[in-house]
Amino acid sequence: MNPFTFYNPTELIFGKGQLEKLDEKIDQLGKRILLVYGGGSIKRSGLYDKLQAIFEKKGCHVRELAGVEPNPRLSTVKKGISLIRENELDWILAVGGGSVIDCSKAIAGGALYDGDVWDFYERKAKVEKALPLGTVLTLAATGSEMNKGSVITNWETQQKHGASMTFPTFSILDPENTFTVPRNQTVYGISDTLSHVFEQYFSHTKEIPLQTGFAETIMKTVIENARKVLQNLEDYDARANLMLSSTFALNGLLATGVETDWATHSIEHAVSAVYDIPHGGGLAIIFPNWMKYVYKENIPRFKRFAVEVWGVDPAGKTDEEIALAGIDAVRAFFNEIGAPSRLADYNIGDDKLDVMAEKALPFGPIGNFKKLGKEDVREILKMSL
Amino acid sequence: MNPFTFYNPTELIFGKGQLEKLDEKIDQLGKRILLVYGGGSIKRSGLYDKLQAIFEKKGCHVRELAGVEPNPRLSTVKKGISLIRENELDWILAVGGGSVIDCSKAIAGGALYDGDVWDFYERKAKVEKALPLGTVLTLAATGSEMNKGSVITNWETQQKHGASMTFPTFSILDPENTFTVPRNQTVYGISDTLSHVFEQYFSHTKEIPLQTGFAETIMKTVIENARKVLQNLEDYDARANLMLSSTFALNGLLATGVETDWATHSIEHAVSAVYDIPHGGGLAIIFPNWMKYVYKENIPRFKRFAVEVWGVDPAGKTDEEIALAGIDAVRAFFNEIGAPSRLADYNIGDDKLDVMAEKALPFGPIGNFKKLGKEDVREILKMSL
Repeated sequence: MNPFTFYNPTELIFGKGQLEKLDEKIDQLGKRILLVYGGGSIKRSGLYDKLQAIFEKKGCHVRELAGVEPNPRLSTVKKGISLIRENELDWILAVGGGSVIDCSKAIAGGALYDGDVWDFYERKAKVEKALPLGTVLTLAATGSEMNKGSVITNWETQQKHGASMTFPTFSILDPENTFTVPRNQTVYGISDTLSHVFEQYFSHTKEIPLQTGFAETIMKTVIENARKVLQNLEDYDARANLMLSSTFALNGLLATGVETDWATHSIEHAVSAVYDIPHGGGLAIIFPNWMKYVYKENIPRFKRFAVEVWGVDPAGKTDEEIALAGIDAVRAFFNEIGAPSRLADYNIGDDKLDVMAEKALPFGPIGNFKKLGKEDVREILKMSL
Repeated sequence: MNPFTFYNPTELIFGKGQLEKLDEKIDQLGKRILLVYGGGSIKRSGLYDKLQAIFEKKGCHVRELAGVEPNPRLSTVKKGISLIRENELDWILAVGGGSVIDCSKAIAGGALYDGDVWDFYERKAKVEKALPLGTVLTLAATGSEMNKGSVITNWETQQKHGASMTFPTFSILDPENTFTVPRNQTVYGISDTLSHVFEQYFSHTKEIPLQTGFAETIMKTVIENARKVLQNLEDYDARANLMLSSTFALNGLLATGVETDWATHSIEHAVSAVYDIPHGGGLAIIFPNWMKYVYKENIPRFKRFAVEVWGVDPAGKTDEEIALAGIDAVRAFFNEIGAPSRLADYNIGDDKLDVMAEKALPFGPIGNFKKLGKEDVREILKMSL
């Protein structure tokens, strides 16, 4: 195990009907609120009306930033910062999934910063203070509700970068708020959650039995409950287990003392910066190809993954065959749940491979399980066509 | 899964050589420090000298509260509160195991409270503010380094009670600081850690796959690394895995959404309030008897425990036989590592069974897996003689 620091002060408020806790948060954080959300889904689901009733009861002054994109854009972040400043708002309430929360984190850090908020994403500056941020999660996927990461797309420069911004002060996770998430978004969330675990599980760090067991528990829980939820999108227990899995997958727990990878995320960010495809869809396409490209770096780890997570029967197989059967199981699972399997599914051809490979490495080689240069990324993208 | 709130703001600083991070904590929290420790072990191990060097370099004004008891006493807490007040100290640095940290939490809460600090332990008051508290952990056992619980003994009234006090602001966990923990203390720590997991694992709550898998991972990690560390008390990896296990076992993670039990801890507290025996020793004696007394409430859970954690072969056995084989495995493991197995090992006879049973239920029936009254506790104690 490597030395590490773990710190995560987000208050997680989990379960049916927990929106009622918003009252005391308004008492603590103030009545001048920026409400951030995406498309109209929170209006269709009735969540918007519930929020309005709470705001009215508490006498809140609320400004809205609606229409945050699935890959949230820098221009939207800047609109939010202006709303905060013009209206002297106290804090931000993000209602949505990872894109809404990531956008809100950028606003929270940018509102108290004199320079351009993009500085944080270009690694030119670090966040020193931020407005308080609460979230009401409506999509189990990114884990953004309990970490300080934020990914923003600069559409003008076709760049998609992540930065360390700010932890939500609190996050309300009611699994019922994910009942109305449509099948395809649910699938992307499952793919995103599993991908976060993959990024941290495939590691050469020795003596990490806790982290390994926790990661395997999350992966097995996601696989089992994905199958249940796709049978019945309103299965409370399955939605709850997926929701908590997605939060625990990226709240820092799995990374304690572990050298993590994150190359596949860089590659996917490059693809969706150019083509604006759903993050979870891109990951489902690229991850099994990354695995095939790198597994020889640590066959015992891939063997364990195959046996423990996917139930591959090791009898009569070489270690390499077991490892490869595990990777096949990942692809088969993504196919089973209806995730895309090739870039062609998004009508992406081979004409921008170089552009994407370039964008995937803005700060040099990526990954730790195997260090990847531009040629490696190009090869993985080619395998994904 | 039940609704829950999870909040844990302690900064965990883990790994070899991490004591160096104390410098920046002194910069943040102040130079007027109450140093709290137990017997002379931190002097023998050299840790005390390292701390003095840091205090000197940073120009700190340090007062000491030394000699905190293994079951920390209310009278010692009150000495600490007086030292804080008389010397206008900024914060508390607890260097030791659970008893030193629990004592320090009581001081942190008591120092800013007008009434008697024992009020918190008698559930007459709740902590509203506390002095900052940092810890340097030297014993993997109680998990107190990353939760807000504190257990204090009022020797005058022979009462041992727990209270919710305050989270450490930071905790420095260097596994090398546990190298000098003697064999018997190491065994008590192992028993304590496993007992914390038991209290949360034996639950009737449905649909808790994450919590179940996390708990099983911790138990398996403790069992495996206990065997290693008892072969070589200076095995860094084994000490590291035990240390992180003990922290994760009681930082709130395993309790998320789960109805937990804690009856066995109440029973042990009653025993050690009367006889002042080591907490971990008492738990090793009582827990297998609690299991035998309650397993029929949920045989499937005990069956799973036997198979997943202890590797009991289910072939040819009834579910009840499998469950009982798991309980036998717990007793066999405690015997293997040299933990006590009977109250007679501490020269405790049957003359105070009623007194202890009475003390175990100061606030009414205990436990959730099976609600226990005074007669139940008496029976479990009798099985433990």
